[in-house]
Amino acid sequence: MDFFFNPKSVAVVGASQNPFKFGSIIVRNLLTLGYEGRIYPVNPNPEDIAGLKTYTSVAEIPEPVEVVIVAVPSSRSLQVIRDCAQKRVKGVIIISSGFKESGEEGVRLQQLMLDVARSAGIRIIGPNTTGILNPHDKFTSTFVLLREVKKGPVAFIAQTGMFAGMLMEWIFSSESFGISKVAGLGNKCDVDEADALEYLMRDEHTKAIMMYLESIVDGRRFLQAARAATRVKPVLALKSGQTPEGAAAAVSHTGSLANNDAIVSAAFKQAGIIRVDAFQELIDHAKLLAYQPLARGDRLSIVSLSGGAAVMSADAAIKAGFRLTPFPQELLDEVQRLYPPWATFRHPMDIEPLTETVGMQRAFEMTIECAFKNPATDAVLVVTWSPFPEIGFTFGFIKELQARYPGIPVAVTSIGHKEYHEDLFSHLEGMQIPVYPDFNRAIKSLAASRDYARYRGQTLTIFTRCEK
Amino acid sequence: MDFFFNPKSVAVVGASQNPFKFGSIIVRNLLTLGYEGRIYPVNPNPEDIAGLKTYTSVAEIPEPVEVVIVAVPSSRSLQVIRDCAQKRVKGVIIISSGFKESGEEGVRLQQLMLDVARSAGIRIIGPNTTGILNPHDKFTSTFVLLREVKKGPVAFIAQTGMFAGMLMEWIFSSESFGISKVAGLGNKCDVDEADALEYLMRDEHTKAIMMYLESIVDGRRFLQAARAATRVKPVLALKSGQTPEGAAAAVSHTGSLANNDAIVSAAFKQAGIIRVDAFQELIDHAKLLAYQPLARGDRLSIVSLSGGAAVMSADAAIKAGFRLTPFPQELLDEVQRLYPPWATFRHPMDIEPLTETVGMQRAFEMTIECAFKNPATDAVLVVTWSPFPEIGFTFGFIKELQARYPGIPVAVTSIGHKEYHEDLFSHLEGMQIPVYPDFNRAIKSLAASRDYARYRGQTLTIFTRCEK
Repeated sequence: MDFFFNPKSVAVVGASQNPFKFGSIIVRNLLTLGYEGRIYPVNPNPEDIAGLKTYTSVAEIPEPVEVVIVAVPSSRSLQVIRDCAQKRVKGVIIISSGFKESGEEGVRLQQLMLDVARSAGIRIIGPNTTGILNPHDKFTSTFVLLREVKKGPVAFIAQTGMFAGMLMEWIFSSESFGISKVAGLGNKCDVDEADALEYLMRDEHTKAIMMYLESIVDGRRFLQAARAATRVKPVLALKSGQTPEGAAAAVSHTGSLANNDAIVSAAFKQAGIIRVDAFQELIDHAKLLAYQPLARGDRLSIVSLSGGAAVMSADAAIKAGFRLTPFPQELLDEVQRLYPPWATFRHPMDIEPLTETVGMQRAFEMTIECAFKNPATDAVLVVTWSPFPEIGFTFGFIKELQARYPGIPVAVTSIGHKEYHEDLFSHLEGMQIPVYPDFNRAIKSLAASRDYARYRGQTLTIFTRCEK
Repeated sequence: MDFFFNPKSVAVVGASQNPFKFGSIIVRNLLTLGYEGRIYPVNPNPEDIAGLKTYTSVAEIPEPVEVVIVAVPSSRSLQVIRDCAQKRVKGVIIISSGFKESGEEGVRLQQLMLDVARSAGIRIIGPNTTGILNPHDKFTSTFVLLREVKKGPVAFIAQTGMFAGMLMEWIFSSESFGISKVAGLGNKCDVDEADALEYLMRDEHTKAIMMYLESIVDGRRFLQAARAATRVKPVLALKSGQTPEGAAAAVSHTGSLANNDAIVSAAFKQAGIIRVDAFQELIDHAKLLAYQPLARGDRLSIVSLSGGAAVMSADAAIKAGFRLTPFPQELLDEVQRLYPPWATFRHPMDIEPLTETVGMQRAFEMTIECAFKNPATDAVLVVTWSPFPEIGFTFGFIKELQARYPGIPVAVTSIGHKEYHEDLFSHLEGMQIPVYPDFNRAIKSLAASRDYARYRGQTLTIFTRCEK
C-alpha cells in the first residue's frame, strides 16, 4: 500500500488548462505541496499544463509510472485502466463518479474496471473519492484545492471524497493539530477500510486514527484489522447510514449496502473502536488521544475559575461516568490556609475566591498542582475564562507538572471572549494541551480516553494471560 | 421591577480609584454603555472617580437615588442597606459574596439585610451576583468589564454572576445576535427566577429567554410564571446541580438547595420550558427561536452540497424525531431534468451533481425553492461548505422564499474552511438565518423549535376549549 501514499511518479488523467476541472486542481495541489516525484498530466488534447509536458494517454508516457489518478468521466475510465495495465502501474486512484453509486450501468462498469485491474495486479482506490493526502511525503490526489496543509499525528480514513475535503479544510484552517495521512476510499471496489487500517496502524507518524464510514465491506476482515489497530493506537469511527433513511441516502452516494446499526455498534465496542456521532467529536477526541496520555481510571480532578462552571462540570463528569477525585484533607488544608475567610476550599475546586488573595496565576498554579499531586487523580480538567484583558496568565507550568507526575491527561476549557479563547487555544494547543470551548466536550473526550485505556488494559491482560 | 433595569439614578457603593475593584469596573461599564441617569460613586475615602463626585455614604447623596449597587465586603453590607432604607431607594443590587453560600454566619447576615429591606419596601437582587445588563436603556451593574455590547432579541436569566459574565463575553464577541436584558440573580434572597420571568415575558425587546439556574426557590410560583411566559415566548433552561456532586458544589457556590432532578425535568416539560445540557445549546436554540418562525411539524427538507452530509444529516434528523419530507414526483422531476445522467435527484437532496450542470448558485436556488414549494415541508436544513474560494454564492434568495412561503424555519450548516465559515456566518446571520458548524446542532435546534410549537399548539387548543 505504501506506493499509494508515496509514489515515485504519478500520472493525472484529466488534467487540463481549465482551472476548475478536478484534474487541474490535483496537479496544482501536487505542485503546492511540493511533491518531489515526476508528474505526468494526461489529456487527449496535449496542452502545456502548469509548465509540465502533457501526454495523450498513460501508455504514451516514456518513463515508468507508479500511480495513476483518474479524473475523467466514468465512460472513459475503462480505457484508462487498460492503458494502466499495459503500462504496469502499481495503483490507480479513481476520482470519477458514475459507478456503483449511480445504478446498474455503473455497477457493471465498476466490475469491468476491477476485473482488468485484478488481472494486471493493479490495486484501485475509489472510484468516487478524493483519495490520498500525505503531507509528510508531499503527495496528494485530492481535488479540493489545498490552501494550507499541516503535518501532524492524526490520520483520517474517509469514505466520501467531498467530506474528506470539508474536514481537511476545517482542520487545516481551525485546528492546531495536523494530519499524518488521509485515505479517501469512495466506493471501495478494491482497497477498503481494513486495508487502510492495516497500513495506518504501522505508520510511525500516526498516533490516532479517525474514520468516516458509510459501509463496512467485509465485517470479519474489518474486525480483525480493527482489533489489531486498537492494540497499538486509538481508532475513532463515525459511521453513518444508522437509520433506514440515512442508509437509503448512502446507497445513492457511495453505493453502500446498509449494515445493521446495532451490530455495527456491538462490533465497534468489541474491537475497541470509539464510536462518535459528529465530526466535532472526532476532532475533539482525536486531539486529546494524540496529544495526551490515556486516562488510566475514572477519578477526575476539576479546577475552575467559575463557581457555576464548577457545578456544571461536576454534573457533566458524573453523567459521563467519572467520579470526582477524593481529596485527602491535608492537601485541601494546604490551600485552605490561603483562602479568604468566607470561602471553603473543596472539590470541585472553585478558585475564584483564591484569586482574590493570591492572584490569578498563583491560584491556578497551586490548585492544578494540588490535582496532580493527589495520587488518586486519573485526569485533570481546568476551566478558565477571560476575566480581565489586563490580567494575563500562562499555563506553561502544566507541562512541568505533567513531566513530574506522568500519565495524567489534562484538558482545558475556555469560555468567554473569542479573542481570549483564540489566544489561549494557540498558547495551550501549541504545548499539546487540548482546549475546548465547552466543558461537556472536554469531559466527553476525557471519557473516550478512559474507555479506550480500559479496553487496552483488558485486552492486554487477556493477551498476557494467553501468553503464559 | 422596571426600575432595576432602567433606573433614573444609581449609586455604586465600593467604587474606588483601583481599576480592578468591582465597584470601579461597574462605574466604568456604566460610562462605556452611555448610561443617561445620574451616577453616584460611594466610598468612605472621598476620591474623584472617573470625573464623578464621590460620596462617603448613600445617605449623604443630596438627590433621590432609585437603585443602589453594593460592591463592598459582606460585613459592611448591612449598614449600606440601612442607609438605603433611610434614603428610600427602590432597589438594591448586591454584588458582594460572603452570604448564604459561605456558611452559617453568611446565612444570618443575608437574613438581617433582607429584614431591613423588606420593612423599608426595598427589593433586592443578589447577593453574590453581577445583576443587571440592559443594553437598550444603557444600564448595567455587572462587574465584568464590558468591551462590546450588542442589543438584540434574547434575554438571559442567570444565577451565577461570573457565568453571566462569561456567557455575555462569548455572545458579544462571537455571536451575531444581541441581548435584550440580563438578570443575574445570585443567591436570590428576594428577587428570584419567577420575578424575572414575569418581567421578561412582558418585555417587548425580548423574543426568547435563556436561563441558567442552580436552584428553583419556589417551585409552584416558578411553574406558574413559566407557564405564563411560554404561552407568549420560548424559554430555554440550563439547570445544574443534576447530580449529587453537582448539587453539593452548588450549595457552596450560591447557597442553593438541591432540587430533585427528575421532578425538575418533569416540571420544565409541563411548563413548556426547553431544557438543554450545555451553554452551546442555549445559544444554538435561542438564535433559531428568536430569528425564525416555529417549525409547525416534523417534516424536514434537507438540501446538501455534500453526499456524505446528506447521509449523516438524514440520520441525525430521524434520530431527532423528524421525518424526511415526502416529495411529490412532479417536484423531483422538475429538477431531475437538469441532473447529469449518472445521478438521481431524491430526498435528502445531494446537489453536488446538479452543480456540475447548472452551477453552484442555481443548484442551491432550485433545490431550496423545491423544499419551500413542497406543501409538506415544515422546516428546511441547508448544508453547505467551502468548495472553491473562487466560486462565491449568496443566500439572499432564502429570505425571498421565506416571504413567499411563510412559517417555515430554515437553518444552515457550514463545514470546512474557517474563513469561509465566518463569511457565511455574518452574511446569513445578518439576515437572521442561523448558521451552525455542525448539522447535529442545527437539527437539535430545529427539534427544539418543533417541540415548542407542539407545546404551544396543545396549550392553545386547551385554552380555546376552555374559553368556549
